[in-house]
Amino acid sequence: MSFHDRPVFPRGFRGASRNCGLKTTGKDLALFVSDVDCAAAALFTRNHFPGAPIILGRETIRAGRLRAIAANSKCSNVATGERGLDNARRMAAAAAAEVGTTPDRVLVSSTGVIGVQLPIEKIERGFVGMTADLTSDPLAGVEGIMTTDTKPKALSASVGDCTITWLAKGSGMIEPNMATMLVYVFTDAALGASQLDRLLRDAVHVSFHMLSVDTDTSTSDTCVILANGHAGAVDQADFARVLTAGCVRMTEMLARDGEGAQHLLRATVRGAATEREARQIAKSLVNSPLVKTMVHGADPNVGRVLMAVGKCFDCTVRAETTDAWINGHSVVRGGLRIDFDETVLRSALAAETVDIGVALGVGDASATAYGCDLTAGYIQENAAYYSS
Amino acid sequence: MSFHDRPVFPRGFRGASRNCGLKTTGKDLALFVSDVDCAAAALFTRNHFPGAPIILGRETIRAGRLRAIAANSKCSNVATGERGLDNARRMAAAAAAEVGTTPDRVLVSSTGVIGVQLPIEKIERGFVGMTADLTSDPLAGVEGIMTTDTKPKALSASVGDCTITWLAKGSGMIEPNMATMLVYVFTDAALGASQLDRLLRDAVHVSFHMLSVDTDTSTSDTCVILANGHAGAVDQADFARVLTAGCVRMTEMLARDGEGAQHLLRATVRGAATEREARQIAKSLVNSPLVKTMVHGADPNVGRVLMAVGKCFDCTVRAETTDAWINGHSVVRGGLRIDFDETVLRSALAAETVDIGVALGVGDASATAYGCDLTAGYIQENAAYYSS
Repeated sequence: MSFHDRPVFPRGFRGASRNCGLKTTGKDLALFVSDVDCAAAALFTRNHFPGAPIILGRETIRAGRLRAIAANSKCSNVATGERGLDNARRMAAAAAAEVGTTPDRVLVSSTGVIGVQLPIEKIERGFVGMTADLTSDPLAGVEGIMTTDTKPKALSASVGDCTITWLAKGSGMIEPNMATMLVYVFTDAALGASQLDRLLRDAVHVSFHMLSVDTDTSTSDTCVILANGHAGAVDQADFARVLTAGCVRMTEMLARDGEGAQHLLRATVRGAATEREARQIAKSLVNSPLVKTMVHGADPNVGRVLMAVGKCFDCTVRAETTDAWINGHSVVRGGLRIDFDETVLRSALAAETVDIGVALGVGDASATAYGCDLTAGYIQENAAYYSS
Repeated sequence: MSFHDRPVFPRGFRGASRNCGLKTTGKDLALFVSDVDCAAAALFTRNHFPGAPIILGRETIRAGRLRAIAANSKCSNVATGERGLDNARRMAAAAAAEVGTTPDRVLVSSTGVIGVQLPIEKIERGFVGMTADLTSDPLAGVEGIMTTDTKPKALSASVGDCTITWLAKGSGMIEPNMATMLVYVFTDAALGASQLDRLLRDAVHVSFHMLSVDTDTSTSDTCVILANGHAGAVDQADFARVLTAGCVRMTEMLARDGEGAQHLLRATVRGAATEREARQIAKSLVNSPLVKTMVHGADPNVGRVLMAVGKCFDCTVRAETTDAWINGHSVVRGGLRIDFDETVLRSALAAETVDIGVALGVGDASATAYGCDLTAGYIQENAAYYSS
């Protein structure tokens, strides 16, 4: 399979974004619409303080039917109580009125600062006439949900006659659990809500759930898939394969655009006792500040790889069977740092993508986690996020 | 109780440090000696890749008797195999010969880069004649074990007739489990090895185990206590109280001197369902990069406090009973961000010590965790640690 050179929407889907006055400049409102009702499934954050859109979204997705997604950036509508929930409902109603559907067919997302009430009047006014802006360019729509993202993120691919399109935002406060930030998947395949739910969970398990920019799980994570059926039936195995590949690719795009990031950091653990342990150790590697700064500085301080594996106390790890590689260069064998050419390793670490491989030699399970380096840019961005 | 203005050793203990050529400049070798054999207990890292000194130390401490501690900085002797273990034994033997005891009475520590063999000949030569340098100033000895520490860390306090003295190093790769970095505690109280073991475990549980600079658990963590009995019997409850207070104070000194840190960050969680959950949530707060950068920038982005509490998925958290404070200023009530004076909160966040308080309202358990802010200094230090 391959991704399209320029992302396109599946048949029947369109999107638009606007500035409605939440941000001083730049798009802050987005609308994604299908021309007919879609089967739909979604995963949401497991954070104990879910935003109002998440509380409403869990209710909305129960019917497994969606017509549109309405989203804003700048304000996440989290920790805002009953008034926040009312505002989320008003946002769904405003988008539904513009689209010509009912509020229970609109999934709402908000992203931005936590603990501030949504300027709902601006949003309601913003949706008026917005269907006139709808275009078939996914990038045009996704601009409205960007926060600290440095670029809009969209992908599309074909499966037989059908198309799958992924849109996402996300840059910081990312260690998803149940889903990640805002990820919208559109397809014209004919699939039911329960099929979509199973397919989405399987794909997310090896992609967004294995992503961490900074270990912090957002209160707004949402991953939703809409299928309008325009392309008819699809081979489900093919669809699952392409859905998963696109979710993994989007995960890499999110990691690459992590706040302040200069490198994609990928950690693959093989030979683990269980999949749970493989996942935990791979996550430990991409989450370790000392591994992340090693990658940032292209500093061949490979002992930190052992440290990050070894701090997974409840996993089966045997020093004598542990090997490690960095971009294919062997750096640890049998738990011991081996002699390597430091100049070569510095070059390997300076590559845009840094792959850390660990073979534990204690079982057959494997997993890959996705992250990025840790830079002064991350600090700068987050030391004044609220104030900027 | 109060700590001495200037730290002193208990009767019978002395220390010294030297440069033996591991570092270009600065002390890199330390020796701490009692004039008689001591009862002793120790806790070591739970990392799966313990350094050679940890492997040897577990063997040495079994007898519960120590006469001296020998330590070096710059090289941690981790992931160095059989040769590393031989070098650790040679280091103990060299120190024992100089002190006039047997190698099994010497605890060895090494700290610094992982995966490099110890320059053992330099260390052996370094110990020769070192007893002549021994002084009763704890600060003189502790200089030899500093790595990225910006200042030597020592404390002492009295319990009845006896004295307790804490020496420590540690600045990065700090989220201890079973102990932290290198912490040496000396006392002239008469206490047995098993009593010391219990007292040390209890004190470490609420102090070093609740410290995290960067979530990364070192391969060299060691916390050891030596009691030479010169001051005779001591009231055990008093001793436990002072031992714990000193361990907490030293924990704060380590957090304050975390790599790049400008603030001590303390998180206290009350009203939790269990102590385990209180500890987990307090740790989540001091480990969150977004909470740490909020403190660094004195940015009143208090929603991040809720995010960090809420991402403890397996803990009992109810939004409606959750309150939070920053340096005594109420910022969240019943899971909702309350209106506060932003200027006042910015000043509170700019204080050298930032206390985050969270009341969960679901039980009676509480815990405090210790950390620091995350700064560009941390990145700079760790992007070239190996190379510098």
